Amino acid sequence: MHTYFMAQAIAEARKGLGRTHTNPLVGAVIVQDGDIIAKGGHLEFGKEHAEKNALLSCKTPEKLFNSTLYVTLEPCNHFGKQPPCSQAIIEAGIKQVVIAQLDPNPLVAGQGVAYLENHGVEVTYGCLEEQARALNPFYNHYFEHKRPYITLKQAISLDGKIALQNERTAITHEEALDRVHLERASYQAILIGSQTALTDNPSLLTSGASLYPPVRVVLDRRGRLLEHPDLKLFENSSAPLWLLTDQELENLPQHVRLLKPASFEICDIVACLYQEGIQSLYVEGGAEVHDSFLAADLWDDVITYLSPKLLGGNSRAAFSSQRLGHQVTELSDFEIEQLGSDLRLYTRRSERCLQD
Amino acid sequence: MHTYFMAQAIAEARKGLGRTHTNPLVGAVIVQDGDIIAKGGHLEFGKEHAEKNALLSCKTPEKLFNSTLYVTLEPCNHFGKQPPCSQAIIEAGIKQVVIAQLDPNPLVAGQGVAYLENHGVEVTYGCLEEQARALNPFYNHYFEHKRPYITLKQAISLDGKIALQNERTAITHEEALDRVHLERASYQAILIGSQTALTDNPSLLTSGASLYPPVRVVLDRRGRLLEHPDLKLFENSSAPLWLLTDQELENLPQHVRLLKPASFEICDIVACLYQEGIQSLYVEGGAEVHDSFLAADLWDDVITYLSPKLLGGNSRAAFSSQRLGHQVTELSDFEIEQLGSDLRLYTRRSERCLQD
Repeated sequence: MHTYFMAQAIAEARKGLGRTHTNPLVGAVIVQDGDIIAKGGHLEFGKEHAEKNALLSCKTPEKLFNSTLYVTLEPCNHFGKQPPCSQAIIEAGIKQVVIAQLDPNPLVAGQGVAYLENHGVEVTYGCLEEQARALNPFYNHYFEHKRPYITLKQAISLDGKIALQNERTAITHEEALDRVHLERASYQAILIGSQTALTDNPSLLTSGASLYPPVRVVLDRRGRLLEHPDLKLFENSSAPLWLLTDQELENLPQHVRLLKPASFEICDIVACLYQEGIQSLYVEGGAEVHDSFLAADLWDDVITYLSPKLLGGNSRAAFSSQRLGHQVTELSDFEIEQLGSDLRLYTRRSERCLQD
Repeated sequence: MHTYFMAQAIAEARKGLGRTHTNPLVGAVIVQDGDIIAKGGHLEFGKEHAEKNALLSCKTPEKLFNSTLYVTLEPCNHFGKQPPCSQAIIEAGIKQVVIAQLDPNPLVAGQGVAYLENHGVEVTYGCLEEQARALNPFYNHYFEHKRPYITLKQAISLDGKIALQNERTAITHEEALDRVHLERASYQAILIGSQTALTDNPSLLTSGASLYPPVRVVLDRRGRLLEHPDLKLFENSSAPLWLLTDQELENLPQHVRLLKPASFEICDIVACLYQEGIQSLYVEGGAEVHDSFLAADLWDDVITYLSPKLLGGNSRAAFSSQRLGHQVTELSDFEIEQLGSDLRLYTRRSERCLQD
């Protein structure tokens, strides 16, 4: 019966989809004598955790004593925006806690379990762990690999070009563009290089309003963007803009921050974003930026929007740089989807080349 | 009833598929009093034409007088490898001839019809013309556009690369390679540049034996291949090899010819192949060769084999050259097919950009 109740807890967790920001999706159900007497999910960043919501929702609190709690993620044991759940569990007199996944966040990891056990609660974990892990791929990746989950996203022609020389070039059609806008919203940050910012002048927004729109990150060591205050990135303040630069400037618009990574090597860029708590990154290019993530071996999947066009000649080619390309990187999990007249091609890093 | 009998004639035509070489597929049926009394197709290059085969196959020759012949292509009126069909039709006493498509070959065009009419035969044409034309796309294209039908074929990685620098690089997997071998067999010639010949050392053969394997054409102005007699193209003599070069050399292997086009501009290359009777051309690259066909506006469709890999850096990019790429060429009729772990993407020249 454990998996049955845990599946209900996972369903509760999904109710928070898109609203928990950097927090994981978590769901919980409480069972007494084979009946679910309460359930809850973490529904909004900064608000009650799933366990607390389940306890609050219980209409028969007298049945909580000696009950069993099923929860998709290890209960927290620290004061964050909310008091620790482990304490609330003890206070409610719950006898047994079944956990799907231990929390990879070092603020919790194992401590929630230890606290519960020290207070006489019977704890087991690993029930439907894989399904529960799938709720929070970015959150898990961030804590387990100590860097954001990184998606390289490109839009290319049939001959692998991203634009005519030094000219903003529309590659894909409307359906694909709409999809990109949706897709951006599921990442915590979007990154581009300064050349792309200057040539394409994108606003890098998502479709629909969001309490937590992805941070727009531009790699701009020399501060070239600072000379162009009319760029959409500056003019549109509906999402934060972080310039990774070694320049300094005051009196920037409120939504703009300057960050100084240890160096402009991709590993230091990624380390800087990790320090800033960025759990997921959608890298939109251009070609040199993509290639430097590839060369640094710091990426997880590649999303390609492909349009039936030819550019030819000296047009800018995808994933290109002066670097000697000396090896072929195989990708796996190839998924093909037709979007109007374009294709969306999803590919993951092959297990074989996973090193971290 | 005309379309019913013409559909039977088209079915007869298809029986010659793959065996008529530069000749068109042609089928015929003969009808008397609403019954088919004979049918035939052109089944092999150099052998009897469809009309003749139908006449020969007729088991009730007494019924031929005043009958109606349905034929997918205008009957010929000249002595080629076979005596003229128009004459045989007259001699058989056929009263009416229904033709699907007039023959675009100037040796025939309109003259077959004129001869028949001058001898009192009732002639109509245009019945199921589109379906009949579809039997012989390359043949029609050759005579109507005075150049071969040209397919640009590429094998690329997900980042639009065709190879690591100066290194033969396997891009696609076995299913795609098998398909390319099959596909080659439907063209009359395959063309590559000398750099591809030297770097990849391909044999450019098809799968299975053929009486008329595609001619292997290499653009080799400076005669670079002549210094490498150990190349597979020289060593394997199972298909003709034509070197388009301004060099001269004697004592070449029997299967090798040197051809000297008027210049090495693509229009002159194509004109040279047209003069040699090449009706269809499968251009396998490299990147500069593809780009020069694109720039010369001499191409009809593009077949792309795409493999989920990344090469990055300075790897060779598809359709690339020093030429200023200044426009986007839209393609149409996008067809997607999965071949094992790779994709085959078919695209045609968009009507909008058809100029010839």
